[in-house]
Amino acid sequence: MPDALNIALDAMGGDHAPDVVVEGAALSRIRHPEVHFTFYGDEAVLKPMVAKDEALSAVSTIVHTDIVISPDMKAGQALRQGRASSMGLAVMAVKEGQASAAVSGGNTGALMALSKFILRTMPGIDRPALVALMPTINGESAMLDLGANVECSDDNLVQFAVMGAAYARLVLGLSRPKVGLLNIGSEDLKGHGSVRLAADRLRNADLPHEFVGFIEGNDIGHGKADVIVSDGFTGNIALKTVEGTAVLIMSLLEKAFGISLFSKLGYLLARGGLKSLRNHMDPNTHNGGMMLGLNGLVIKSHGGANTAGFASAIDVAIELAAGNLQERIAADLSAMESDGDAATEETAIA
Amino acid sequence: MPDALNIALDAMGGDHAPDVVVEGAALSRIRHPEVHFTFYGDEAVLKPMVAKDEALSAVSTIVHTDIVISPDMKAGQALRQGRASSMGLAVMAVKEGQASAAVSGGNTGALMALSKFILRTMPGIDRPALVALMPTINGESAMLDLGANVECSDDNLVQFAVMGAAYARLVLGLSRPKVGLLNIGSEDLKGHGSVRLAADRLRNADLPHEFVGFIEGNDIGHGKADVIVSDGFTGNIALKTVEGTAVLIMSLLEKAFGISLFSKLGYLLARGGLKSLRNHMDPNTHNGGMMLGLNGLVIKSHGGANTAGFASAIDVAIELAAGNLQERIAADLSAMESDGDAATEETAIA
Repeated sequence: MPDALNIALDAMGGDHAPDVVVEGAALSRIRHPEVHFTFYGDEAVLKPMVAKDEALSAVSTIVHTDIVISPDMKAGQALRQGRASSMGLAVMAVKEGQASAAVSGGNTGALMALSKFILRTMPGIDRPALVALMPTINGESAMLDLGANVECSDDNLVQFAVMGAAYARLVLGLSRPKVGLLNIGSEDLKGHGSVRLAADRLRNADLPHEFVGFIEGNDIGHGKADVIVSDGFTGNIALKTVEGTAVLIMSLLEKAFGISLFSKLGYLLARGGLKSLRNHMDPNTHNGGMMLGLNGLVIKSHGGANTAGFASAIDVAIELAAGNLQERIAADLSAMESDGDAATEETAIA
Repeated sequence: MPDALNIALDAMGGDHAPDVVVEGAALSRIRHPEVHFTFYGDEAVLKPMVAKDEALSAVSTIVHTDIVISPDMKAGQALRQGRASSMGLAVMAVKEGQASAAVSGGNTGALMALSKFILRTMPGIDRPALVALMPTINGESAMLDLGANVECSDDNLVQFAVMGAAYARLVLGLSRPKVGLLNIGSEDLKGHGSVRLAADRLRNADLPHEFVGFIEGNDIGHGKADVIVSDGFTGNIALKTVEGTAVLIMSLLEKAFGISLFSKLGYLLARGGLKSLRNHMDPNTHNGGMMLGLNGLVIKSHGGANTAGFASAIDVAIELAAGNLQERIAADLSAMESDGDAATEETAIA
């Protein structure tokens, strides 16, 4: 597939694989008729499924493998035994230039380990970071790192900001995304030193993003920043706290509607609007997290994604590949380094 | 006030002071008729307000001061100029044994600084921690530290667990609260070393709480633990993320109900239930955060608290004072130390 985009699909990864993978590709193909798909997995199962959709079949290839990474396989085991699995082959296709991006709904730990091992970190990036989209009051924000790195230096945080901004420009379609560093707000209780150092450097950088400074936990849902940067420990806690709070409120809402006959009737009348709310808070709608900073694109779909969710993960893969995410990150990093040099020279002259 | 409890009230602190302070005390007095109150603030304003409620007036004293800590005063300035303020005098009353606890809705940074300076850290506690109640699916959980300490050692976390459990026993009325350490979940992505070390020590401690191990961000709202322990950076981010997500969903909910005439009618029919949901997510309902680990009780009310909210902060102060929180913490800490000694001896013998 020399010129057209080819997307490598781990057809066996995720709770509803291979069905949602094939159906998701069929849905994404309607929006991207020029893209080619390669399915990695059990050919005997996949062939009739793909054949059912003639248009999909025309742009698809199936590569057979018997090996599947189980949901509970440890990362180390995946590295030893999983390189010829449907997941491993999809990532390898990216490494070898056969595919522009890979998409998998399988075991997250295994996917991250295989991706890091096979693709390696891109030049100028010390550590890759997990990014995903979060629902906000006006739409979505990108947040990273969501758990790949427990401890982060200011260098790491600055690199995350550059990568996250490039991702947001493509996935959220923003020409100049607002970047914020997650911190605690009270003036007397300052955050980690690394966060403050990273802020100083981002404030002075001349990049295609706007640095909005520190943001607090309650600013996430408010959409104060399009890109929210933090260490992986804090980011993971914040991500899961958003999820948990949404579940909490939805349960309380159901209780609230069950209280009286009147409120039950109210629920029936309001359910159209409630469905759209539930939809906005549903991770499926915001599918397309990935590990940024590797020499290649690997998109992680939620394991429980439905067809629409998996299709949206494929869409993200296509947008990032077509938009040359990797080249943008590399260019921004080198622009930032020359800024740094310029600043040093000025200081030297003064 | 030798035997009966006396509660020191910063009558001038908070957005709606002194009104909600006096009215909150009047409300709390109905539930605790045996308690005495001392109001610190502008006597000319307070006297007629308190006099309006004869029963309150009978159990109240007013101590005059002109000095008020402004909401934007820095902690350092509060320490230099604020010791004779309504806030400073209330805390000083605790220090001098004239009051069993102080309650203030004023400037948080100033209150923490004055409390730490005047009361000092209790023996066996290296650093005090901010605790507050969070809404969960079944009720409430206590969470700490919410921002007093950015970096925490395993010693700090273990002490927070002991203090938080003692707080939960009194405020939540639990004989054996479940204590969890906030961490990130994936097996391959382990949390901070201090969190893992603290877990080992809590697992082996023989205390009046049940250690449930690590909990993730999404477990907070689920009520998996009655006491959630973390460093102050992560805890502050999690607390504010819960608040922000609740605001996000409530706004989306209003939008959802505004979509059609049907859903507007639905809202009218369901508003009783929705009111109870909003009430459960309202910080006023869960008022009574404090700095645990000082030689005295100082309860922080939300600055925007209404009368019911301020009354609930006073209730917490009374429960903690009547339940001898400080003595319980001291006893648990020394029980834990003897556990440690016993373990060391065993190891030495083996």
